[in-house]
Parts: sequence; C-alpha cells; structure tokens
Amino acid sequence: MTTETLQSSRERLLEAAATLTYRDGVGIGVDALCKAAGVSKRSMYQLFESKDELLAASLEEQAADYVTALLPAADDDRPPRRRILHVFAQAETQASAPDFQGCRYLVAQIELKDPCHPASQVARRVKENLTAFFRTEAEAGGASDPDLLARQLILVFDGASARAGIKADTRAGLIAPTVAALLDAADMR
Amino acid sequence: MTTETLQSSRERLLEAAATLTYRDGVGIGVDALCKAAGVSKRSMYQLFESKDELLAASLEEQAADYVTALLPAADDDRPPRRRILHVFAQAETQASAPDFQGCRYLVAQIELKDPCHPASQVARRVKENLTAFFRTEAEAGGASDPDLLARQLILVFDGASARAGIKADTRAGLIAPTVAALLDAADMR
Repeated sequence: MTTETLQSSRERLLEAAATLTYRDGVGIGVDALCKAAGVSKRSMYQLFESKDELLAASLEEQAADYVTALLPAADDDRPPRRRILHVFAQAETQASAPDFQGCRYLVAQIELKDPCHPASQVARRVKENLTAFFRTEAEAGGASDPDLLARQLILVFDGASARAGIKADTRAGLIAPTVAALLDAADMR
Repeated sequence: MTTETLQSSRERLLEAAATLTYRDGVGIGVDALCKAAGVSKRSMYQLFESKDELLAASLEEQAADYVTALLPAADDDRPPRRRILHVFAQAETQASAPDFQGCRYLVAQIELKDPCHPASQVARRVKENLTAFFRTEAEAGGASDPDLLARQLILVFDGASARAGIKADTRAGLIAPTVAALLDAADMR
C-alpha cells in the first residue's frame, strides 16, 4: 500500500474504533472494526500490533478534542471558580446528547477491567490531566486543600458522567449545586 | 431432571453469572457460564429464557446481600447523618478488596448500554432503593432539600465506586469529607 492509503486506513480504523467501542463496548471484535473501517485485517495488523493497541491509539487521538470541549480557553480570564464550573457545564451539555453513554475515558477503563491495558493507561492519563487542571484552579482560587478539592471534583465528574450514561438521573439542578457545595467547603474564591 | 437437580443447576448458574460477569464483563458467553456452572446449555435454557434473563436473575439474587452489606440495621438508632456515613464506610471497606471492580449494579448498566435490558432494570431498581434510603434519612435529618441531597449522595456513591473499581484513586481521606461537605451544605443534623 502507498503511504497515503495506509494513512487513510489508519484514520478510518481509529474512527471506527472510537465509534464502535463507545457504542458497543470494548469487546467489539476485530472483524467488526475492520468491516466498519473498510480495511482488511491484514492491513489492520500492518498498522497496529493488536486490537488493544488500536483501542489505545483511538483513545489517544480523541484526547485533544476531549480536552478542548471541556476546558476553558487558555486566555480565558475568568476566576478559577468560574473556570471549574465551565468544565461541568460543558460536561452537562455533552451528557444531554441522546447517544451519550458516559465519559469514554471512564467507560473504557471500567470495561477493560485491567489498569495495565494500554488503552486503560491512555484513559487514565487523560483523566489525570483533567484532575491536574482542577488542582491548578483550586490552588489559584485559594482552596484550603487543593489536592482534596481536585479529587472531589473528578469524583463528581465521573459519578455524574456514569449516571448520565446509564440514564439514571436527569442531572437537572444537580451538578452545579453539588460542585458549588464542594467549592464552598474548600473556601474557594 | 428432578426438581432438586434443577434447583441446584439454577443456583450454580446464578453464582457463575454473578462471578464471571463481574470479573469479565457482561459480554461473557453462554458456553463459559455453563462450563463454570457445570450445567449443559440445554439445562440452562430450560431454566432461563436467555442469557439476558440469567444476568437479570443473578443481579436480583445478589440484591439482598448487597443491601445488607451497605445499610445500617433497621433497629440501628444512630442519627440519620451517622446512618448515611455508615453506608459510605461500608462501601469503602468493600472497595478495598483486591478484586473490587466497582458496584456491580453500576458496572452492569454501563456495560449493557441499554436501560431496557432486563438486567439493567434490576440494577436500576436496586440503586433506586439505595437512593430512597438516602432520601428517607435526609428527610429525617432535616436536610434543606432531601431530594437534592439524596441525588448528590448516590452521585458520590457511584463516582467513588467507579473510580475505586478502575484503581484511579486510593480513596483515602476522600469520601468522608466529601459526604460531610454535602451533608453540611444541606444543613443536615
């Protein structure tokens, strides 16, 4: 195959992996992934060592969009408290999409049940970066215990996403007061 | 088969379903379930209409133990606030087990990705009962908004269980102050 064809096959496999594992779970078969991508299994194994590596690469590729969709712009000059609330407002908007099944970086780890899986490691790193954002803002906002507040916020983030994914709660009027209570308890400006 | 044999096969299938779906996910095959239970597929289909029904029955059967392990005794006379904290302390103990993968009633729903699946419906009912416990205690403890507090508590419960299941957080020093902040924000006695 030409480099160009390989590149296009790679992109289609990453896209198929992102879409199908989110919709059907990480147990989705290689055959289904290759079929959806219109790529032969032979080509897939030229591009990725294994399905596990494909999953990991697919989560890695989605990470930039994930972060951009959630975080405030770097030159956003609102106070830390507002910047934190921005993340939860964005997450709430995402969760209202009819095909929302929870944060893909949480769901993948739950389904893989193996913290050492390459895709779990990618997912964990993405969420650690989100936790680090919360921690930086907590510190900038004078939180009494920035570490604790950051851990509380990612806990609420994951809980809200998991529960929205299973349609357990409408979320209406839930997240903002929950986050506000934790920010207040930390004396966050 | 005699009624006794059928009963024993049923119990072994329920046990295998509980153990294997928790360990490996809901995608576990009928063959693996029957093999682990030492029951023929023919017998399985005499006892359960489908694997979906077996999963649902297995979650149903675990429910009583789940509730007993988490909730305070009915004649427990501690104040509501302490009764709520008891649930989180119990959950924290469970989460420290090496094979803990998160609350089985949350994980099953996330993996099934279908709120109409019979097993999702069982799981949802079990968690709704836990939410109802929180609501009753919130009201008894004079919470300013018992509905909101109950939704916040189940959100933290699920978030903590999901994150413990993926080994994302040690949980040490996290849950008690988080729950306390929410109880305080609700002016809970």
